[in-house]
Amino acid sequence: MLGRLNHVAIAVPDLEAASAIYRDTLGARLTQPQGLPEHGVTVVFIDVGNTKIELLEPLGAQSPIDAFLAKNPSGGIHHICYEVPDILAARDRLKEQGARILGDGQPKIGAHGKPVLFLHPKDFSGTLIELEQE
Amino acid sequence: MLGRLNHVAIAVPDLEAASAIYRDTLGARLTQPQGLPEHGVTVVFIDVGNTKIELLEPLGAQSPIDAFLAKNPSGGIHHICYEVPDILAARDRLKEQGARILGDGQPKIGAHGKPVLFLHPKDFSGTLIELEQE
Repeated sequence: MLGRLNHVAIAVPDLEAASAIYRDTLGARLTQPQGLPEHGVTVVFIDVGNTKIELLEPLGAQSPIDAFLAKNPSGGIHHICYEVPDILAARDRLKEQGARILGDGQPKIGAHGKPVLFLHPKDFSGTLIELEQE
Repeated sequence: MLGRLNHVAIAVPDLEAASAIYRDTLGARLTQPQGLPEHGVTVVFIDVGNTKIELLEPLGAQSPIDAFLAKNPSGGIHHICYEVPDILAARDRLKEQGARILGDGQPKIGAHGKPVLFLHPKDFSGTLIELEQE
């Protein structure tokens, strides 16, 4: 079921400072910042060849990464996203196995325009996992 | 400088339970557990096609992931590893930029038999980064 690693998402308190670290110190290629108000984040994508890193900064009055940054003020790895061939089949299989899906269990359209779901970290070794339709 | 994402490492308190989640619930392909006493961990590799996930469980009296698991008892994403074409050139460039290398700054032989270095999380948005020679 589990497909490729689509991205690793890193929540940061200051997107400009984090972008400078990846661009200037680490010599990576970055996209321009892109505001995603419907997701409550501004994002910069880093193409590392075989997958992507996403730097996320809170956007708007309430962001889904506010609580994480309150606990981790310097930032940190927020979630990992795997591709799955059929997100509804994946969801149903996970529910059958007793795993919890976050929210109402209906896929939402993610940052790449494809359906996504998030899984409960307590059911996955403390890791927040996003599934994205291939 | 920054090359492919070699792996994402997830520290877990119980490798057998975490392996069952990835194998049975998520349908991933796993290797047999491999003890690496010189690194203080037992590791299971998950091949997700474009990169690897490594599940790490403490091994021995003192493990480098003990402190992380004390703070995150359910487990969590411990570090990410990027490949670099020349690890000594990468180290020297990073030091010139003011970034801190963990330990004595000399590459050690990592879990894949190649030279590795770890970078100080405070200099990289709260993320522990491993660099591995390609």
